[in-house]
Amino acid sequence: MRRDEYEAFFKDGISSLQNEGRYRVFAALERLTGQHPRAVWHGPDGTKKDIINWCSNDYLGMSQHPSVVKAAEETLKNEGAGAGGTRNIAGCNHLHVELEAELADLHEKEASLLFTSGYVANEAALGAVAGMLPNAVIFSDALNHASMIAGIRTSGAEKHIFRHNDIADLKRLLQSVDPTRPKIIAFESIYSMEGDIAPISAICDLADEYGALTYLDEVHAVGMYGERGGGIAEHVGVMDRVDLIEGTLAKAFGVLGGYVAGSEAAIDFIRSHAASFIFTTAPAPALAAGALAAVRHLKSSQQERSAQQRQVQLMKNKLRSAGLPQLPSASHIVPIPVGDPKLCKQASDILLKEYGIYVQPINYPTVPRGTERLRFTPGPNHDDRMIEEAVQALTEVWLRLGLSIIHRAA
Amino acid sequence: MRRDEYEAFFKDGISSLQNEGRYRVFAALERLTGQHPRAVWHGPDGTKKDIINWCSNDYLGMSQHPSVVKAAEETLKNEGAGAGGTRNIAGCNHLHVELEAELADLHEKEASLLFTSGYVANEAALGAVAGMLPNAVIFSDALNHASMIAGIRTSGAEKHIFRHNDIADLKRLLQSVDPTRPKIIAFESIYSMEGDIAPISAICDLADEYGALTYLDEVHAVGMYGERGGGIAEHVGVMDRVDLIEGTLAKAFGVLGGYVAGSEAAIDFIRSHAASFIFTTAPAPALAAGALAAVRHLKSSQQERSAQQRQVQLMKNKLRSAGLPQLPSASHIVPIPVGDPKLCKQASDILLKEYGIYVQPINYPTVPRGTERLRFTPGPNHDDRMIEEAVQALTEVWLRLGLSIIHRAA
Repeated sequence: MRRDEYEAFFKDGISSLQNEGRYRVFAALERLTGQHPRAVWHGPDGTKKDIINWCSNDYLGMSQHPSVVKAAEETLKNEGAGAGGTRNIAGCNHLHVELEAELADLHEKEASLLFTSGYVANEAALGAVAGMLPNAVIFSDALNHASMIAGIRTSGAEKHIFRHNDIADLKRLLQSVDPTRPKIIAFESIYSMEGDIAPISAICDLADEYGALTYLDEVHAVGMYGERGGGIAEHVGVMDRVDLIEGTLAKAFGVLGGYVAGSEAAIDFIRSHAASFIFTTAPAPALAAGALAAVRHLKSSQQERSAQQRQVQLMKNKLRSAGLPQLPSASHIVPIPVGDPKLCKQASDILLKEYGIYVQPINYPTVPRGTERLRFTPGPNHDDRMIEEAVQALTEVWLRLGLSIIHRAA
Repeated sequence: MRRDEYEAFFKDGISSLQNEGRYRVFAALERLTGQHPRAVWHGPDGTKKDIINWCSNDYLGMSQHPSVVKAAEETLKNEGAGAGGTRNIAGCNHLHVELEAELADLHEKEASLLFTSGYVANEAALGAVAGMLPNAVIFSDALNHASMIAGIRTSGAEKHIFRHNDIADLKRLLQSVDPTRPKIIAFESIYSMEGDIAPISAICDLADEYGALTYLDEVHAVGMYGERGGGIAEHVGVMDRVDLIEGTLAKAFGVLGGYVAGSEAAIDFIRSHAASFIFTTAPAPALAAGALAAVRHLKSSQQERSAQQRQVQLMKNKLRSAGLPQLPSASHIVPIPVGDPKLCKQASDILLKEYGIYVQPINYPTVPRGTERLRFTPGPNHDDRMIEEAVQALTEVWLRLGLSIIHRAA
């Protein structure tokens, strides 16, 4: 290939995405402490517009909680901005150690390990465990997040995909594999783009029966479910039956980074073998301090969780009354199906530009083609009036784009 | 496998590492703004000890620079701790956009893209580019960082490893591959554990001759080399000949995160295709603000760079005078070979506990077995007396452990 042909290749790749209607345009936001979900959108031409953020994963607004900001600020002042190295080489901070102990306690496990992101946590942990267990087989839910799929690829282990949340299918696959081989069942508690919830207890029963290790991704649940924010496994009382729980500090806890909690030996094993952990600069101490404050706050406060649940229920009810479609979510995630990438983008554009409602179109590869959607995440700071206005705006956009309204409320 | 056998497997894995002398014990540090490289070591038993950090990658102490801390602090106060989503879904911040423009300018490229770490930047960029170019072949330096190796694995592309910094070997390999196939040469400017420097210009000549794309990792050079801190490629005047330059915000820039700079189309292509970019929460706005301040400062200030170079030269001279071994580094990295994992750990332990000198043992898998070393990174804040005392301490430890002294200075 000639050197001048590479540029043409990249340009062609971008054109294909544009023609397919799934070229992503990032909306640059300026957040406003104390005012979430209100923010300022910075347009590509330099214009600014006040918007309400309806698709944030800062689910409880904790990124702006005074205790979080204060803790991060103090550490920033006292210790500086960066960790200065990998965890092994000059980058391990006393706050990392403290936060790991706090997270282990949150999940009632012996130990936990921090990563720069939830993506890396999944990639690293599944990659190391499934990669080192000799001749291991992974059983992976069909809707597992890209990061778990990356971990499975890193491991090189044999993979069987079971139908989404389908216990019978998982059982059939477990039965089909030699009982002496190591097995890992990898799944999520809340699936981020559907909002549905896994049958964790039934999966643990199968793990017992077939001798499998259980690996549960709780990133869309930690902080929001369970008496102390330990996630769905805490909520349904099965934390002790799950071997490895993966969580994030970047969503309900409002900061950045991911983690895995489990037995001391399992965590030490991951710490010692995962390349993407070993060869990465440690998380910023200030963010560790902020996360520590968020986790501690949500261990005792129920206020944010109950306000979130109330507003989510209100929005689901209002959507139903307006005859707007919604996927059957059992969680705080409210996905509104559109089913076409261009219409989805168009609806999102009108909502942003004409109504100041920011909700990103969710297109392939985040969801399968034909299931494009808008995904709303109402939180404790979306008040009743915001919900009312959002449903009204959606109704108008739905009619304008000729999308189907199920029935009109009186 | 039975469920109770997994725990034993993890424990056995840890025991093997311990027996081999390469079990890693993290040293938890408390950093002290304004006092770097001084810090406080928190022992596992709760004791504290003042130490001097000799192995930090906060090479210029920028993590504690007033302009960096202030910028991060302001954004933390104004916008909160976290970005609140992926770049595509609610997490794109105006500061990300601004920082990307600044980094593109630093490397005189059209565009750049931020990642949560340098590891992810390499994994994502090489994975996407080499994975999408049909039938691509990667030519990879034998000492390339684990993150580039991860990117090559992600891509699934055919890989040829050339001998470290060996132009003749690279040429031989390029010649052996069908001229019509897309080719990528992936290499580093400064190799982190050796401190030696790649022949970038000669590699670019080969890329021209054989129609290859060039991918250069400058993480141990950005901020420290070149008139504006653009790295070795700037220093030797070949930035325009390198297609993709990867850098980090976590070392000389003192914060956290990685990036890739290149043509607008190439960067847009990576942005649109790399899973580990798409499905990851965006970097914290406060850290983006801190990094922006650091990059801007080091674009004009020469003070940190020249002080670093002076202190590095002083340390190399003192080591030579003392008859202590050092690898032939052409950069700010000063590796002192030990050649045995247990002695390396022992030397490090004595230096920490008896001399308050913190320098981590570098063992396999970070370096090949038999090449274990201590790696010193003197910076502008290591004063002459600290260097004097470090060399004196090393001499005493070397004699005590029976390690070879080349010749004794008078």
